[in-house]
Amino acid sequence: MKFGFFDDERKEYVITNPRTPRSWINYLGNTGYGAVITNNAGGYSFYRSAGQGRILRFRFNSVPADQPGRYIYLRDRATGDYWTTSWQPVAKSLDLYRSRVRFGTGYAVFESEYSEIRSEVTCFVPLGQAYEIWRIKISNKGKKKRDLSLFTYVEYPGNWNAIDDLLNLQYTQYTLQMGYEDGIIDHGTNVLIPEMPDKFEEKDQGRHTFLTLTGAEVTGFDTDREVFLGSYRTYADPLIVEQGKCTGSLAAGDNGCGTLQSDLTLAPGEEKEIAVILGVGSAAETGRKVREKYRSLSLLQDEFDEIVRYWHGRMTAFSAQTPDPAFNSMINMWFPYNSLTTFSWARAASLVYTADERDGLGYRDAMQDLIGVLHNIPEEAEERLELLITGQVSSGGAIPVIVPFSHRPDKEHPPAEEEYRADDCLWMFNVIPAYVNETGNTGFYLKVLPYADRGEDTILGHMKKAILFNLSHTGIHGLPSGLKADWNDCLRLGRDGESLFVAFQLRLALQTYAGICSRLAVSGEEEWALQTLKKLDALLDKHAWDGEWFLRAYGPGGEKYGSRENEEGNIYLN
Amino acid sequence: MKFGFFDDERKEYVITNPRTPRSWINYLGNTGYGAVITNNAGGYSFYRSAGQGRILRFRFNSVPADQPGRYIYLRDRATGDYWTTSWQPVAKSLDLYRSRVRFGTGYAVFESEYSEIRSEVTCFVPLGQAYEIWRIKISNKGKKKRDLSLFTYVEYPGNWNAIDDLLNLQYTQYTLQMGYEDGIIDHGTNVLIPEMPDKFEEKDQGRHTFLTLTGAEVTGFDTDREVFLGSYRTYADPLIVEQGKCTGSLAAGDNGCGTLQSDLTLAPGEEKEIAVILGVGSAAETGRKVREKYRSLSLLQDEFDEIVRYWHGRMTAFSAQTPDPAFNSMINMWFPYNSLTTFSWARAASLVYTADERDGLGYRDAMQDLIGVLHNIPEEAEERLELLITGQVSSGGAIPVIVPFSHRPDKEHPPAEEEYRADDCLWMFNVIPAYVNETGNTGFYLKVLPYADRGEDTILGHMKKAILFNLSHTGIHGLPSGLKADWNDCLRLGRDGESLFVAFQLRLALQTYAGICSRLAVSGEEEWALQTLKKLDALLDKHAWDGEWFLRAYGPGGEKYGSRENEEGNIYLN
Repeated sequence: MKFGFFDDERKEYVITNPRTPRSWINYLGNTGYGAVITNNAGGYSFYRSAGQGRILRFRFNSVPADQPGRYIYLRDRATGDYWTTSWQPVAKSLDLYRSRVRFGTGYAVFESEYSEIRSEVTCFVPLGQAYEIWRIKISNKGKKKRDLSLFTYVEYPGNWNAIDDLLNLQYTQYTLQMGYEDGIIDHGTNVLIPEMPDKFEEKDQGRHTFLTLTGAEVTGFDTDREVFLGSYRTYADPLIVEQGKCTGSLAAGDNGCGTLQSDLTLAPGEEKEIAVILGVGSAAETGRKVREKYRSLSLLQDEFDEIVRYWHGRMTAFSAQTPDPAFNSMINMWFPYNSLTTFSWARAASLVYTADERDGLGYRDAMQDLIGVLHNIPEEAEERLELLITGQVSSGGAIPVIVPFSHRPDKEHPPAEEEYRADDCLWMFNVIPAYVNETGNTGFYLKVLPYADRGEDTILGHMKKAILFNLSHTGIHGLPSGLKADWNDCLRLGRDGESLFVAFQLRLALQTYAGICSRLAVSGEEEWALQTLKKLDALLDKHAWDGEWFLRAYGPGGEKYGSRENEEGNIYLN
Repeated sequence: MKFGFFDDERKEYVITNPRTPRSWINYLGNTGYGAVITNNAGGYSFYRSAGQGRILRFRFNSVPADQPGRYIYLRDRATGDYWTTSWQPVAKSLDLYRSRVRFGTGYAVFESEYSEIRSEVTCFVPLGQAYEIWRIKISNKGKKKRDLSLFTYVEYPGNWNAIDDLLNLQYTQYTLQMGYEDGIIDHGTNVLIPEMPDKFEEKDQGRHTFLTLTGAEVTGFDTDREVFLGSYRTYADPLIVEQGKCTGSLAAGDNGCGTLQSDLTLAPGEEKEIAVILGVGSAAETGRKVREKYRSLSLLQDEFDEIVRYWHGRMTAFSAQTPDPAFNSMINMWFPYNSLTTFSWARAASLVYTADERDGLGYRDAMQDLIGVLHNIPEEAEERLELLITGQVSSGGAIPVIVPFSHRPDKEHPPAEEEYRADDCLWMFNVIPAYVNETGNTGFYLKVLPYADRGEDTILGHMKKAILFNLSHTGIHGLPSGLKADWNDCLRLGRDGESLFVAFQLRLALQTYAGICSRLAVSGEEEWALQTLKKLDALLDKHAWDGEWFLRAYGPGGEKYGSRENEEGNIYLN
C-alpha cells in the first residue's frame, strides 16, 4: 500500500503516488460503451467489443507504458509552461505536481495541483449511454489572474477493428477521415462503405465518433496526430501545446487525433467547469444532440450520482465487517467490483488481453466468472448462464469461445472434433446449482434451451449431455480424455491421453447430478449417476493412485505425468 | 532533397539531416538473416521471415516513430552527459550534434559528432551469415582524455512469432528467458519446448539469439527492459545510462533487452574500434564461436568490402549516363537496389507490412517484382519464377500467397473457389517472355513443372492453363469474371461481375501466347489463340465500349462501373 489506500466510505481506491510500478486500470461504462482507463489516464474506449468496435487506439506493452489515453493539457499563456491533468504524459516533477487519482465504481477522478492551478477530472459513462464524459473543474488557487489554454487529446483508430488498426497498416492508414464542424470533431472510418447495422462483426464498418465540449468556447482544433505532436516528439511535448495554438488540421488517412482547444481566464479563486464528451455517432447528428443535452452542466452531477448508486446497488447482496480493515475493503468493495467487471469484459478488454485471440467469452472462464456475481446480479447472471448453456453443442461439448453479439443458438457450427476442451461443460456443475441455491429457482433445471448447433433440451438434459460427453471421450485406461486441453490450456493430451483434473470434475458432476435428480425425483437418473460414479472411482483407484498421490495425467502414449517416476512430465507438458 | 543527397560514386544515399519527415529505411542481410534499419537506427531483425522468425521487436506506427531499434548510448563518465550514435532516441539538439547517415547497398553507416567525440557505426550482415555486425569506431577529437561508457540496446520479442509477441501478451509475456555468460547475452524464447528444425512455421519454436562484443571488455550487462529503462522513462532517458552502471538483471518473462556495457578511455586523438555482434544461436555455442572468429577485428573490413562488391555486382547489367544527374542516381543505383530489395522481402518486411496478413509472396506482386530484376539477377529470378509457377493449381488459378519456406508443390490444397483472384496467373504473360527475352533461354517454355495441387505440365502448358482459367470463369456478358479481386484488391466483382482490366490482360495473354507458339511451332495453338482473341475482341466491342470509353467493370448485377451513366460506380466499388 505504498501508492494509495482504500476509501471504504466512497468505495474508492485512492492512488496518492501516480508513479505506480505498473499501470493500474479501472473500467468505465457498460457492455454497450466500455472503456479501460489507467491511473495515468491511459487506455481506450470501445463499443460492444474491444476488438471489433474500437473507438480509441491504444498501444499494448509499449514504451512508455500505457499510452495513449485521454489527455487534457493545460498551458499557461503567460509563461508557455504546460502540464496534464493526469501526471503522465507530461509528467512534471512530483515535487511540484500534486496528484490524487480516485478509482471508483465505474468512474475515475484525476485530481492535480500544479503552479497554483487545481484540476479535477471525472471520467464516466452515463448509465446506458454510448458516450463518455470527462467532467473538468479548473480553479485558480493563486492570487493572480491566470490565462490558460486547454487542449484535449485522444488518438483514433483508422478502422473499427482494433487489430487491423494496429497491424494492417497498408489498409487502415488509408481509411480514416476526420472532420470538424462548429466545435465538434468527427472521426470517420471507411466512410464510403455503407453501414451494415445487422453485421456488427464486419470489420470494415463505416463508423463515426464525435468529440465535443461544453461549458467553454472551442477556440481551435487539430485532428492530425503528426501535426499535433510534431515530428520526433511524444505525448510529453506536443508541438501544438508548446506553441499554444491549434492549426485546424484535418487528417485524411494516416493517424487521427481529437484535439479541441479552449482558452480560459481564471480570476484568483475562480473555478470553471467544462465537460468533454466523446461517443459513438456522427458530429453532425449525435454530436450536436448530445452537446445540446449538456448545454447546461447541471445534469452532470445527477448522472454521476446515478452511476454511483447503480454500481453500489450491484454490490449490496453481501457485506461483512471483520476486525481487519484491509480485509473489509477487499470483500466489501474491491472483490465484488472486480468480479462484476470481469463478468462484463475483463478477459476481452484489458492491458493484457488485446482482442487478438478472443473477442468473446471463453467458455470455461465465463462459467467460472459467474460464481463471483450470482448473489449480486442474479438476473444478469441467469441471462449469461443461459447464453453459455446454448453454447453447448448437441454432442455435449462446448464451443470454446462464445461471441455474444453474433451467437446464434441452433445455427452454430459445432467445433472441429480436435478443438473440444475436456473441461468446458463440466463447469456447469459448479455454476448451475450455485445459481439455483442462491435464487431458489429450482424450476431452472427444467427450462428448455437450444443447443448451439441443433435440437434443444431441459437444462438438466444439457447437464447430462455434458456428463455423457466426457464418458464417451475416454482414453487408454477408460478415464476422461484430455482432448485439446483440460483446464490447463498448455496440457494437450488429445483423445488418448487422460486428465485427472477432468476425472475429478466428472466425479463432482456425477455426484451433483445425482443430488439434483434425487431432489427433482427424476426416475432412474440418480441411480445411474451413482453407479457410473462407482465405476469411475474404481478406475481412478486402479490407474491414477500411485499409493501416495494421484497422477496428474496420462500422456497420449500412456506416459505418467506427475508421477514419482516421471519428473520430466512435471516440467514439459505441451 | 532537403535532407540529403546521392553519392553516386559509393552508391549511397547520404542523409545530412536526420529529422526526416518520416522514417527512411534500408535493408541489411539476405533472405536468411534480414533486417530493416531506419535513418535513426530504428527497426528490427529476423531469420527467414519477418513474421515467423522475429529476432528483434519493433512497434509499428508508434509514437515516437520508428522505435525501438539498434541503439548505442555513449555516456561521459566525468559529466554524466549521454547521447546515442544515431540522432534518435536521445536526440541531442542538432546545433550541437552533427549527424550523417549513409544508406548503402546492404549496409547503413551512422556518423555522429557530439562534445568532441566522433563515432561511426556500420551495420551489416556478412554475406551468407545469420548474424549482424555493428562496427563501431569512436574517436576523441578534443584535447583532453575522455572516460566514456558505451551501452548497447536492442529489445527482444518474447516469441519467435512477431504478431504473437505484440498481441498475445497473456502468453508471450511468460515465454522469455534471458541469460548471460562471459560477455555474451543469451535471448531465449520457449526454451523448454524442443526445437523442431523441420517445422520452421511452428510459432512456438524454442529459439536462442546471442549478443556480444569484441574489441573491448564487457563491464556490465542488463537484459530486463524495465530495469534498463526505469519506470515511466523512454529510450531517450534510460535509467541505467543516466546512472552509468549496469545491474546484471536477467529477465524471465516480461520484456527482454540486450544491454552490454563497456567502459573506454580515449586519449586526445585516439580512436577505438568495437564490434557488436547479434545473431541466431545460443550464447554458449554459436555466440562463443562467432566472437572467437572476430577476436581480431581485421576481418571486418574484408567482410564489409565483400558485401559492397556483392551488391554492386548485382546492379551491373544496366547503367546509363544522361545529362540529368538525379535521374542517373535513380536509374543506376536506387531503382535497381530497391527492385532487388523488393524482390527479397519488401512486401513482407517493412514499416508498413507488419507480417500480420502476409508472411510470404503475394502471387501477383511477386510476379510483377520479377520484371525489375530479371536483367540483374537472372538465375535468382528464374528460381523465383519457377516457385511461382508451381503456385498455380491445376485449375489454372493461383494460390494467392506463396510461402517459400513451407510451399510443397503437388501437395498444396487449392484455394477455396471464392478465393481466386482473376488476374494472378495472367501476369505470367508479362514476366515469362521478359525472362526468356532477357536470357535467350527459349527452352524454358518447355520445362516441366508441377502444379501446386497435383499434376505437372510444361511452362507453356501452365500458361495455357492460365488462359483457360479466365476463359472458363466468365460473367453475364461472357467477359472474364472479376472474382475475389482483379488487380484492384478492393474491387470484388465475384463470378458474375466482369473486369475489363482482366479482359485486357487476357487479350495480352492470347496475343503473347500466339506469338510464342508460332516461334516454337506448336501446331494449332497459334490459330486457337488468335481465334479466341477475335471472339474476345467482339465481346469487348459489343459490351465494354460506350462510344467514347471502355467501361471499368460490370458489377455482379450487371451494373456498369466507370460508365458515364453510373458515376457512383467510380467512387464506391467494394
